[in-house]
Amino acid sequence: MEIRVVRDVLEESNLRAQENRALFDMHGIFAVNIMSSPGSGKTMLLQKTIPALTERGFSCAVIEGDITSTIDSERLQPLGIPVVQANTEPFGGDCHLGSHLVQAALKQLDLSSIDFLFIENIGNLVCPAEFYLGENRRVVVLSLPEGEDKPLKYPLMFRECNLCLLNKMDLAPYLEVDVELMKSNVHKTNGQIAILPISAKTGEGVGEWIAWLLHARGGQS
Amino acid sequence: MEIRVVRDVLEESNLRAQENRALFDMHGIFAVNIMSSPGSGKTMLLQKTIPALTERGFSCAVIEGDITSTIDSERLQPLGIPVVQANTEPFGGDCHLGSHLVQAALKQLDLSSIDFLFIENIGNLVCPAEFYLGENRRVVVLSLPEGEDKPLKYPLMFRECNLCLLNKMDLAPYLEVDVELMKSNVHKTNGQIAILPISAKTGEGVGEWIAWLLHARGGQS
Repeated sequence: MEIRVVRDVLEESNLRAQENRALFDMHGIFAVNIMSSPGSGKTMLLQKTIPALTERGFSCAVIEGDITSTIDSERLQPLGIPVVQANTEPFGGDCHLGSHLVQAALKQLDLSSIDFLFIENIGNLVCPAEFYLGENRRVVVLSLPEGEDKPLKYPLMFRECNLCLLNKMDLAPYLEVDVELMKSNVHKTNGQIAILPISAKTGEGVGEWIAWLLHARGGQS
Repeated sequence: MEIRVVRDVLEESNLRAQENRALFDMHGIFAVNIMSSPGSGKTMLLQKTIPALTERGFSCAVIEGDITSTIDSERLQPLGIPVVQANTEPFGGDCHLGSHLVQAALKQLDLSSIDFLFIENIGNLVCPAEFYLGENRRVVVLSLPEGEDKPLKYPLMFRECNLCLLNKMDLAPYLEVDVELMKSNVHKTNGQIAILPISAKTGEGVGEWIAWLLHARGGQS
């Protein structure tokens, strides 16, 4: 009985995700699901990414996933793009974004005028990896202070993503972290994943990340 | 029907936790559940905590919670104390430790010779807060690079804990983090929680943390 219930929930979740993807395809939207531990720098990454895309003529929108609060949406407000806050608290305080919540958020956006849709997931290196939202690409942000061993300890997230951004490179001189070992642990977990070292704070590597996004959108699948 | 199933699981979980607590009480064990985001420094904290307690004549043991791998247990091996690795991967890859897993781990320890039992939970600032394991105290480690806003965005964890260790204080000069705002956000979420700034790396504040542990064990409830 329990198994049947769980299966129903997952099927429902995947159906909603497929509907989201159909909407993205219909409107030419390239959707990127950004995941990480709490405090890895997802929001600051968006603060740097969006101006770089808009100055190239692309229009962007963001779905901000959080359990509670509108802190991240407020940080993005000055960018002047559509931002929808998706909080899980009214729905049981889920530890990840669900495809139904993304679907509800999409209803608040003018889909005909979006090139890139960024979905900032809840800060959690475990559960969000299990839930497909309809996105075109999945990106994991791993910040240097988290340590080299994270891909080995939380492998599903790294297996499920197309790109790993090694963020907070500006802190490297003050940490004992071995960046090469960190990269090798990411690749040990997923031989196919791309890795880009960046610092959302200083802008290091942000150009390469933008190039990755444009290339991925060009060869969209 | 779904509601009944969930309730059964939670009741089962609390029953196991109460059995664990009865074992702790019977053997005079003081159990501390340590939780945090991935990479906040829980294991390094234990590497500094255990020698400080053993040199004061207390015997310690650790239950190491991880989804997969034995990396953290191996880091603790040189301490020469009993360490049991509790991996959730064989049980569905749960994103938190369950009281049944702690119970299984306890069977591998000589309970009659433990003063302090540290349970290092899986790195996750969300889900572990929901599951009582039978512990005497709950501690959340929040590292400075994670940013000031985390207590506001992940309030349950901070509401459920007795102590918040602000770790990686040694990085303060290289971050734009406002430590006073971080503390005030912790207290805004939970007016009763104690806060100690520490650096497991440099040893700053570790003495105060040991004093907190000894005091908490003295006034054990």
